[in-house]
Amino acid sequence: QMPRGNLETVHHRALVLAQLRTWLDSLRFRDSFECMRKLRINLNLLYDHNPKVLLENMQTFITQLSSISHINLFLTELKEEDTTSTMYPRPENSWVQTQPVSGQKKVDVVCDALRSAMESMDPNKFFLSVLTTHVKKTVPELEVALQKVHELRVNPPPAPGAVSAEEALKYLLFLVNVNDLYEHSLGTYDFDLVLMVAEKSQKDPKEYLPFLNMLKSLETNYQRFTIDKHLKRYRKALHHLSKCGDEHFHEALQLVKEQKLYSEALRLYAADGAQYKALSCCYAEHLMEQQQAEQAGLLLWRCGEPVGALQAFASSSSWRNAICAAQQIPLPPDQLALLARDLAEKLTEQRRYSEAALLLDQYAKDCEEAILALITGSVWEEALRLIYMHNRQDITETNLKPALLEAVGTQTAFLEAQVATFTRHKTRLAVVREQKEKARLDMLDEDGPDCPDAELYSEASSVMTGSKYSQSNSRVSSRSSKNRRKAERKKLSLKEGSPMEDRALMYALGEILTTVDKMREEVHGLLKALVLFQFDKQAEKLQPAYEEALQMMEAAVPEVWLESLQNNQAPLTGPNSTANSIMASFQQQQRPAASQPAAEVLMPPKMRNGVKWKLAILM
Amino acid sequence: QMPRGNLETVHHRALVLAQLRTWLDSLRFRDSFECMRKLRINLNLLYDHNPKVLLENMQTFITQLSSISHINLFLTELKEEDTTSTMYPRPENSWVQTQPVSGQKKVDVVCDALRSAMESMDPNKFFLSVLTTHVKKTVPELEVALQKVHELRVNPPPAPGAVSAEEALKYLLFLVNVNDLYEHSLGTYDFDLVLMVAEKSQKDPKEYLPFLNMLKSLETNYQRFTIDKHLKRYRKALHHLSKCGDEHFHEALQLVKEQKLYSEALRLYAADGAQYKALSCCYAEHLMEQQQAEQAGLLLWRCGEPVGALQAFASSSSWRNAICAAQQIPLPPDQLALLARDLAEKLTEQRRYSEAALLLDQYAKDCEEAILALITGSVWEEALRLIYMHNRQDITETNLKPALLEAVGTQTAFLEAQVATFTRHKTRLAVVREQKEKARLDMLDEDGPDCPDAELYSEASSVMTGSKYSQSNSRVSSRSSKNRRKAERKKLSLKEGSPMEDRALMYALGEILTTVDKMREEVHGLLKALVLFQFDKQAEKLQPAYEEALQMMEAAVPEVWLESLQNNQAPLTGPNSTANSIMASFQQQQRPAASQPAAEVLMPPKMRNGVKWKLAILM
Repeated sequence: QMPRGNLETVHHRALVLAQLRTWLDSLRFRDSFECMRKLRINLNLLYDHNPKVLLENMQTFITQLSSISHINLFLTELKEEDTTSTMYPRPENSWVQTQPVSGQKKVDVVCDALRSAMESMDPNKFFLSVLTTHVKKTVPELEVALQKVHELRVNPPPAPGAVSAEEALKYLLFLVNVNDLYEHSLGTYDFDLVLMVAEKSQKDPKEYLPFLNMLKSLETNYQRFTIDKHLKRYRKALHHLSKCGDEHFHEALQLVKEQKLYSEALRLYAADGAQYKALSCCYAEHLMEQQQAEQAGLLLWRCGEPVGALQAFASSSSWRNAICAAQQIPLPPDQLALLARDLAEKLTEQRRYSEAALLLDQYAKDCEEAILALITGSVWEEALRLIYMHNRQDITETNLKPALLEAVGTQTAFLEAQVATFTRHKTRLAVVREQKEKARLDMLDEDGPDCPDAELYSEASSVMTGSKYSQSNSRVSSRSSKNRRKAERKKLSLKEGSPMEDRALMYALGEILTTVDKMREEVHGLLKALVLFQFDKQAEKLQPAYEEALQMMEAAVPEVWLESLQNNQAPLTGPNSTANSIMASFQQQQRPAASQPAAEVLMPPKMRNGVKWKLAILM
Repeated sequence: QMPRGNLETVHHRALVLAQLRTWLDSLRFRDSFECMRKLRINLNLLYDHNPKVLLENMQTFITQLSSISHINLFLTELKEEDTTSTMYPRPENSWVQTQPVSGQKKVDVVCDALRSAMESMDPNKFFLSVLTTHVKKTVPELEVALQKVHELRVNPPPAPGAVSAEEALKYLLFLVNVNDLYEHSLGTYDFDLVLMVAEKSQKDPKEYLPFLNMLKSLETNYQRFTIDKHLKRYRKALHHLSKCGDEHFHEALQLVKEQKLYSEALRLYAADGAQYKALSCCYAEHLMEQQQAEQAGLLLWRCGEPVGALQAFASSSSWRNAICAAQQIPLPPDQLALLARDLAEKLTEQRRYSEAALLLDQYAKDCEEAILALITGSVWEEALRLIYMHNRQDITETNLKPALLEAVGTQTAFLEAQVATFTRHKTRLAVVREQKEKARLDMLDEDGPDCPDAELYSEASSVMTGSKYSQSNSRVSSRSSKNRRKAERKKLSLKEGSPMEDRALMYALGEILTTVDKMREEVHGLLKALVLFQFDKQAEKLQPAYEEALQMMEAAVPEVWLESLQNNQAPLTGPNSTANSIMASFQQQQRPAASQPAAEVLMPPKMRNGVKWKLAILM
């Protein structure tokens, strides 16, 4: 970090820094400043050396620097960088709290502190420096600066030697690009200020005068709207336009649509007015395009547009709201029934059978269809409830009982298939692991611990390879992390001999276990229905079949999800290890740990043993 | 393992074993057998040396041994123990498949193989040995043996030198306890056999003859029932008793109750009979005592006892079934309404508001109460549906809107409290970890790597301590594992300075995160309802508050659930480590890995980022 040069200079600088530190500690700012200027040491050090001390002694600092140009020099050189951690490291054993005002930026802290000190000391004298503190801020406060210049012109201070508005503006133009300043002067809606800036700039009066005159002729709110729009400050523009009365509402609506300022617009108009309603309708249209039909429906409904709301709700399967809107219209009974049937059909497609049944029963008044929907969805108890409610016990014989027998067959076959696949994968996993371990040990014996191929054959290596893609950033959005996991899974191939076959098998085994574990509620309901209708034989087969499947999978957990994989592998020691293999396994451990998604595959899925599903009468 | 004695004997035995192996390999069973008998070498070795060879050469083996007493000697000495892995280890480099018939016990395999060989060669000659093979089985087949003796008596074989029934029975009595044999002979229901055994025994005819005569006088099924009951074979007893007709049903019911043979009993009687119904009622009573009221209800309902079923269902909150049973009775409308109210009250206590509302609405015909239940349960959309269905928009103003405003207040306050606790725990966790790490390094520097106290201060040690209680058995029942986890959690104290404070904090943080994450659905529903009723201001506060809480917690995940804890800690290397500390951390790794429940605390709870809850119109 030190500049290249002859030894003398290098030595000199180190001594100088020591000297500077002593001076700064004893508040000799003037000496420090001059020395730093001469030797071209970054002026940030004045603050960085001990921020707290400078902030608490601002007035001393200003008094000692005395000259405005000195203060401005310090201000212009201000940077967010902490020079004591980059250019001029502190000597060891010295410790200073570097960030006294937490959360705020250093530059802003210094600017605000300097300005407040200067304004309390002599605002006229330090006028240009005050301007500088506004301009230097992280988000430059150009309008405030302009406002101060404007005030200076309106009320020139009587103090002798005070800077003139002319000079101040010139100075501002030296600090800031003229076009920026012009735009910002427009943003103050103060035409005197605008003219002042325009005159000082090299702008052509033929260009800006007609525009300014046009603006001057407008009603205040519309004028401000026009300026805001010109400056692309659309929110402010809308705010002003909303005050311009009904005749400009069309324009406002246009602006809202163009700039998608719907939410803001709704806040600006009274909720019971026609304009609010028009805005709501536009917003709803936009939301429909954005696939947010339900929210569109809410907006339409609350502003008194139940027909539109009904459509929006219906298209988003928000069936309860759709029905309410329909009853508010109110839809005639036959059309309500038709609507209910439409909604029920959609819900059935989404396998939401209970909701579909409610619609069919209560709004389409078709209890038979409702019961059939429940039977299709295996919602046995609710189906029976409707059967009794509507006194349709005939359906028990014609549909419910046959469906129960079919369900028990389907479930049994499904269970058998799951158990078979689980067993096959588990057996294969043991083979793959043995092969990998054998290959790894062979490799280590042959080539010693430095052999890079050896790790290809360790179980841990699959984990590492997998995690490579998921380490970089922990704050990725949920969407991208979802995609990433999907991509990772794609790499897991169950094909025999694929490089990550072991992990693919673990993943597949976990999926099967979770699927079978999730069947508890459904099996419980089915068993009860079977018993009720005296299908004891079928129930007596299903219950032990499901229990065996659960037990088999639970017993396989420690075998499939080895504990040694969940944590890192322990160093490989034992009667069969060689010095080389121990060294190699030790080196493997020093690589970064597996990251989240990879670790997930290595943790066994949880079984919900708390969910009781067995019937005592079948045991 | 070798017997103590003079050197000569020891030497001798080793040589003898080598000789025996050679003989057995060349099928010289006779020589082997005699040598083993003489030198008192365990006869099991005949089989254990190479099971497959003996099984494939059974006839040769029998022919060479020739004498029945030799075969019996071999049989009586048979044990499950594999002598080649206990008494007579194989020489190295020899390998034999020890268990040719997998799953079956060795003794059973040998007995069955020997018997089948002998019976094919000369069943009369080897009769006593055949009996021995039955008696020697893991579960002795006494009845089969007795049956064979009985047959011998009925049809004495003409073959010369064949053993007589008399002799055979005598031999059996020599092998088996006389009382066992008598009981088993009874179990064959063959009185000739019984008498034969009784006569051979020292039993007093005055004792057994009256009993046998009484039995003989009974009808066959009742006779067999009496014998089974005498022998405590209650299932068989019930089976026979069920065939004895109605006059014995009372006795059967008694037996079923005493021995809790309900399920078996139901299988023995026709489902449409009065006896089936009586059994079902008894079973239901038993199930009620066992807190299985719902299953009791199913039994009562299906056997045509809807009143009893209704009570059972009602007491287990199985409300759908209760209502169906009530309608089957059928209960008069006013009583049905009363029942519905009772059930609804119970469900409300269980916070099952939607179900309570259904009962109140559809069966108690009290839509107002139903709507209020839904509002209490924050089931906003469904409440609105009923409001529109029953045209009770007045409730919107009087109850729904005030409840919405209260809910948004409650949720906001709850969120704030959760966030505050989370932040406090997180800060404290950082402090505890720093202290532990510091204490650990200090300890290592002072005392070197062998200091046993050092590990008390490592984060990993908390894990180890916790896992001590949960390693032993992976096949514990779900209940005991639940209790165990509860006990483990009790040890986690949040009190400052408690030994596992860090883990207690992680556990508490995980609980908060899960709780807040679970609010997604409820917040989503509340936001929609707020927007619908134009409470935009409240919604616009709740949405960012909840979002910030979720983001804050998600961002804290990598900090709280350090990756280095999820896996084992990597060896501690780096600029601050000493040779001692590296050694110590390396040694720590060799201890057993953390087991499941302990590892769970170290894994961050999953956040359900897939559950979309935000409203676009509030962003």
